[in-house]
Amino acid sequence: MVLLYRSWRRWPPVLACHITHTPAWITAALRARSSSSSAEKIEERQKRLMARGIPKQKMIPGVKQVIVVASGKGGVGKSTTAVNLALGIAANDMVVGLLDADVYGPSIPRMMNLRGNPELTNSNLMRPLVNFGIVCMSMGFLVEEGAPVVWRGLMVMSAIERLLRQVDWGQLDYLVVDMPPGTGDVQLSISQNIPISGAVIVSTPQDIALLDAQRATEMFRKVNVPVLGIVQNMSVFQCPKCKYESHIFGADGARALAAKLALDVLGDIPLHLKIRETSDKGQPIVISHPDSSEAKAYLRLAAEVIKRLPTPCVSSGKV
Amino acid sequence: MVLLYRSWRRWPPVLACHITHTPAWITAALRARSSSSSAEKIEERQKRLMARGIPKQKMIPGVKQVIVVASGKGGVGKSTTAVNLALGIAANDMVVGLLDADVYGPSIPRMMNLRGNPELTNSNLMRPLVNFGIVCMSMGFLVEEGAPVVWRGLMVMSAIERLLRQVDWGQLDYLVVDMPPGTGDVQLSISQNIPISGAVIVSTPQDIALLDAQRATEMFRKVNVPVLGIVQNMSVFQCPKCKYESHIFGADGARALAAKLALDVLGDIPLHLKIRETSDKGQPIVISHPDSSEAKAYLRLAAEVIKRLPTPCVSSGKV
Repeated sequence: MVLLYRSWRRWPPVLACHITHTPAWITAALRARSSSSSAEKIEERQKRLMARGIPKQKMIPGVKQVIVVASGKGGVGKSTTAVNLALGIAANDMVVGLLDADVYGPSIPRMMNLRGNPELTNSNLMRPLVNFGIVCMSMGFLVEEGAPVVWRGLMVMSAIERLLRQVDWGQLDYLVVDMPPGTGDVQLSISQNIPISGAVIVSTPQDIALLDAQRATEMFRKVNVPVLGIVQNMSVFQCPKCKYESHIFGADGARALAAKLALDVLGDIPLHLKIRETSDKGQPIVISHPDSSEAKAYLRLAAEVIKRLPTPCVSSGKV
Repeated sequence: MVLLYRSWRRWPPVLACHITHTPAWITAALRARSSSSSAEKIEERQKRLMARGIPKQKMIPGVKQVIVVASGKGGVGKSTTAVNLALGIAANDMVVGLLDADVYGPSIPRMMNLRGNPELTNSNLMRPLVNFGIVCMSMGFLVEEGAPVVWRGLMVMSAIERLLRQVDWGQLDYLVVDMPPGTGDVQLSISQNIPISGAVIVSTPQDIALLDAQRATEMFRKVNVPVLGIVQNMSVFQCPKCKYESHIFGADGARALAAKLALDVLGDIPLHLKIRETSDKGQPIVISHPDSSEAKAYLRLAAEVIKRLPTPCVSSGKV
């Protein structure tokens, strides 16, 4: 009996092949079109074609460093982490922006308590919305709340390009990007378009989430984005009545994964009603309960992230 | 000051426009290429072009009905629901298949305790793997566990087409499809490629999850897939020590959303350690603890789903 795996592997040119090698269908198409050309000519054309296909990484004007918050799996607290991380970094007198790259399911408008449509500047750039001192941009500002964005990948890539570059970000020390789940178009587009200083991987200790966190880590390594470490989220729930601690989503899985992948654990955030409630209400816990142990966990996370990044020469000062 | 919203809306041809109307760039391209043609001719060509772009819905041979389990947001328990729903339906003497359409983060192999590569039949179809009487197909059978699938949308669509049609499903009463989060390529491809009997929307009662559940519902309505109802998941956590009930992710949000969207609540599944543990271990609760109240909640859900679908004439009998 023939196993399928090998033939399937040949079919879709997996992973970084897209980025560094020539997919089979391009080779085939080229061969068909230039059967008389020599092998060298084909190779040369392939290289030109591929080079044309890979966008050149370009800094966003005014933005010193970009941090992406990713997870692979959804629902592990990525957006909540991104919001509180951005606020935690801003608490160190840094100017921080927040880009919601989840085109299909934007959460940042709700979590940052922002509504409305961005205005245009004279140079035709979108002016981000601001709350708690953080400048924010999200697909959620451009479509109605609850309305689905049913788009093919190519359109998502175009949207991401615009959300990155057609925005008047001003002078930012850090731009925190809240990535959507998965390892597809958005992740590739962002990694290929802008230089990223580091990726923060969020995971619950649950096996199923850890698998996706591993996938996300491997992906960033393939596209040469430094992975700063893992945030273990929702690791413990304390009963509000008897204080008994339950590990609903497991206990130390993210720590174990970090060890396996030779990554640091950047923080350990408990599962707490207050974190969820403040997120839903648009009053992030770092702002609304700055002295709570949960807010302090996020502030420690922010410090861990900052110290792993090259220091921006001079802070741009608070907005 | 000019608001951007209107111009942005014109830029990406939003939503079902893809499906029923001609995107602006196609119109422009056609105009440029045939400036001398009359307006009628352009219209005609547009129609032909669009008609060619929309795949015709085709049944999967041998599969009587397709149920999709979706959520919009990840991490709300969609895969766990899909697995236990499939097993719950199979408990009614039905033959059930399970397709893991989450190409980027396949969870079904782990949850169904399945490993290995599908073999090929003589007619070059993949033979699904089987456990607990359910025939399963997943991208996870075709790549190594933990390896990322970094693909553009076009390749994901091609993969989905193969996972649907190049599989020897045999005779199935129901095929349960575990959808990935979002409202993008996979959701569109599946909705456009096969006739779907009904969609089950899973959500936690958390505001942020409900927003995405609403997006998913609206999307299915736009593409004419009947939405059977909402499953409220993780609504209550009971402390294993003092039995105190915490609504970590909120209490009745999914019920409220169901009322708002005129949908039924198909089930209410508590947040329980045992459900998570059995999922991670590949021993779904409906199989491993069939007498537990959680398993019974899934069996009730299966009954609610079945009774909302047209009855298949004769069951194909157990595998």
